[in-house]
Amino acid sequence: MDFKGLRVNGKRLQDSVEEMAEIGATPNGGMQRLALSEEDKRARDLFVRWLKALNLEIIIDDMGNIFGNRPGRAPGLSPIMSGSHMDSQPKGGRFDGVLGVMGALEVLRTLCEHDIETERSVTIVNWTNEEGSRFAPAMVGSGVWTGALDRDWAYDRTDINGRRFEDELIRISYQGSAPARKWPVHVYYEYHIEQGPILESQGKTIGAPKGILCLHWYDVYVEGEANQVGPTPMAGRHDALCASAEMILKVNELPQRMGGNMVATVGEIQNYPNSRNIIPDKVHFTVDIRSWDDGHARKAWDMVRSDFEEIAARRGCSIKIEETWRVEHSPFDVKLVQRILEIAEELGYESLHTVSGAGHDASYMSRVCPTAMIFVPSIGGRSHVEVEDTAWEDCEAGANVLLHAVLQSANEE
Amino acid sequence: MDFKGLRVNGKRLQDSVEEMAEIGATPNGGMQRLALSEEDKRARDLFVRWLKALNLEIIIDDMGNIFGNRPGRAPGLSPIMSGSHMDSQPKGGRFDGVLGVMGALEVLRTLCEHDIETERSVTIVNWTNEEGSRFAPAMVGSGVWTGALDRDWAYDRTDINGRRFEDELIRISYQGSAPARKWPVHVYYEYHIEQGPILESQGKTIGAPKGILCLHWYDVYVEGEANQVGPTPMAGRHDALCASAEMILKVNELPQRMGGNMVATVGEIQNYPNSRNIIPDKVHFTVDIRSWDDGHARKAWDMVRSDFEEIAARRGCSIKIEETWRVEHSPFDVKLVQRILEIAEELGYESLHTVSGAGHDASYMSRVCPTAMIFVPSIGGRSHVEVEDTAWEDCEAGANVLLHAVLQSANEE
Repeated sequence: MDFKGLRVNGKRLQDSVEEMAEIGATPNGGMQRLALSEEDKRARDLFVRWLKALNLEIIIDDMGNIFGNRPGRAPGLSPIMSGSHMDSQPKGGRFDGVLGVMGALEVLRTLCEHDIETERSVTIVNWTNEEGSRFAPAMVGSGVWTGALDRDWAYDRTDINGRRFEDELIRISYQGSAPARKWPVHVYYEYHIEQGPILESQGKTIGAPKGILCLHWYDVYVEGEANQVGPTPMAGRHDALCASAEMILKVNELPQRMGGNMVATVGEIQNYPNSRNIIPDKVHFTVDIRSWDDGHARKAWDMVRSDFEEIAARRGCSIKIEETWRVEHSPFDVKLVQRILEIAEELGYESLHTVSGAGHDASYMSRVCPTAMIFVPSIGGRSHVEVEDTAWEDCEAGANVLLHAVLQSANEE
Repeated sequence: MDFKGLRVNGKRLQDSVEEMAEIGATPNGGMQRLALSEEDKRARDLFVRWLKALNLEIIIDDMGNIFGNRPGRAPGLSPIMSGSHMDSQPKGGRFDGVLGVMGALEVLRTLCEHDIETERSVTIVNWTNEEGSRFAPAMVGSGVWTGALDRDWAYDRTDINGRRFEDELIRISYQGSAPARKWPVHVYYEYHIEQGPILESQGKTIGAPKGILCLHWYDVYVEGEANQVGPTPMAGRHDALCASAEMILKVNELPQRMGGNMVATVGEIQNYPNSRNIIPDKVHFTVDIRSWDDGHARKAWDMVRSDFEEIAARRGCSIKIEETWRVEHSPFDVKLVQRILEIAEELGYESLHTVSGAGHDASYMSRVCPTAMIFVPSIGGRSHVEVEDTAWEDCEAGANVLLHAVLQSANEE
């Protein structure tokens, strides 16, 4: 059978993204749907209704990951899997994650609508807690499923109010009975917005990343001495915020000092007691370092860590550092990445061989099966913000590339 | 009558401070009694009971300031006033403010106990909301009473949860019927802990400040652009936290650059969205500049403000600045300051002619009547923290100096 002319229904895809975007919609056009929140539950309920309407086999595992399977002709062959996540950042956008789930759903709807049988089964997935903004770290659902993270450890993660991951999973009724444990997968495709400015600035519609940068997260705690600001001379001060300000600038300068492909960021800071007439005595801030080269990232950290120690000592502060999370760089399957580029060309979309700076569930998946991603442009490169946006025609283009990638993989040996 | 041998009861003073410290006590030995909170109400209730036990004439004005008057022999003469405040910083100490109210109470108890009549009346006062940590700005009760601040403007101040000052004053039943409006006062004495390290480091028991440094408060709002950290190259970033870090260090360097008697501090910072994988797009921080010389402080601000603008422009951020509060330096009455030093010497306490870096209700009072303060050492110079402490014998010494200062002033023409 020749599928060359087959295309997804762009309008239907848009409608699904927009209907999903109503759940947790923010006044400024964004989305707040934190993992295992009431909004997450409502999004899952709608998603499951949509899977049922397609008569898919639904599996919910004990991490709350939701799978919908469309059986192929050859039950003995491992399935194609595609999906992403529906949780969001606080005040995030409508596309991050959701587009990849709705894109895979649109592919399945297109197959069903045209009664297209495939050799291999095709499975859609919604991973639990990809963002990690309520329960750190990120990508926990896929992490446990692939065996990279321990389920009970994940269960014990707590949010800022001390609520446990497992308790919240039970509260929203999404602790399924199937164990979150990998099964054989032939190919995993994840469709996602780029979340950066490269595709747009180069005028390309489709990005095929060669893989995901490594990701190193640190938590830094600086402690000085609090005092009333007026009567405390500058000379005897141990100002934890000033020490931290110096450290933040060192992190910012790191990529330029190190050279090479690297970003380094302080995104979060808490200051105590945070009163305008008290010298700060406690500051917590985070460091995020990413690079294609794990060793390069580690060298950068060693350098900035010794800067931190020098700064703390000079300002009479103490410093405590936690290495919170480390994900090595994830190269994708070379042949699959090539396939994405070829399909884009066949469909008439300009494409780019690129790299992913953001982490994705595809990172863990790439360790257990051949994996590739499909990127579409983020307008203005904006993401993790309420104004995050992607043109609807680009959303449709990405889903078409996913459709043909899935079809090829599902019908191969 | 010769009062030379008269002394306060140090044990009774200690008991009062300790009993007050139980209201809002924190687990680490400090105090949290924010203005117009439930704890503030309970402290006021206890204070009023103590005033009643001395048969004082009690006046509560419509700012919640509480006065207790002990009439003198000559009702036509203006009274001596002494007191401070019983509200605290969040996680503050047991002495800041409270010692000055309990000290004046101990002076009145001593006078009553010995049936000592004075020519002039002696009035004790507890000023509302000196700290300003719940309702900014600080020193609002004395500010309105002296005519420096408008009562209705003060009523409309809101706390972080949007609750109005007046509503909270009514809620705790301390909106009295007397208008908060100054009446003639012969002399105002405020007894307080030093809140700095100078007395201790010089081995002195009593400090007599020549006045209070000027105080300039600013609120700075920096705005950049939020984006996912991974896919956003360093080059195109507009990181509001990095811009703010540079500005914080400029504030910290200011006293050294300017020379002269000056302190400059950033005590408070809020960062948004404050997520470890999002580039910060909004930062708010405060600036506190203090000097004996108002013009010097203004020049320093002009210098750092232009630094701020240069930094913001270079990092592609916008900046908005509010001048939140300005109190000019407050010189105290030269003769009264001299009197404090003399009394200290007569009582055998080592004393120091000093300056107050912290603001006090005495600042507003110094504009309407001759004013002086009495300082006692803060252990380790620590203040506005839970470990804030002063030796009980120093507390007693300060109260003895206050006793004799009050007696001299209350019996003079």
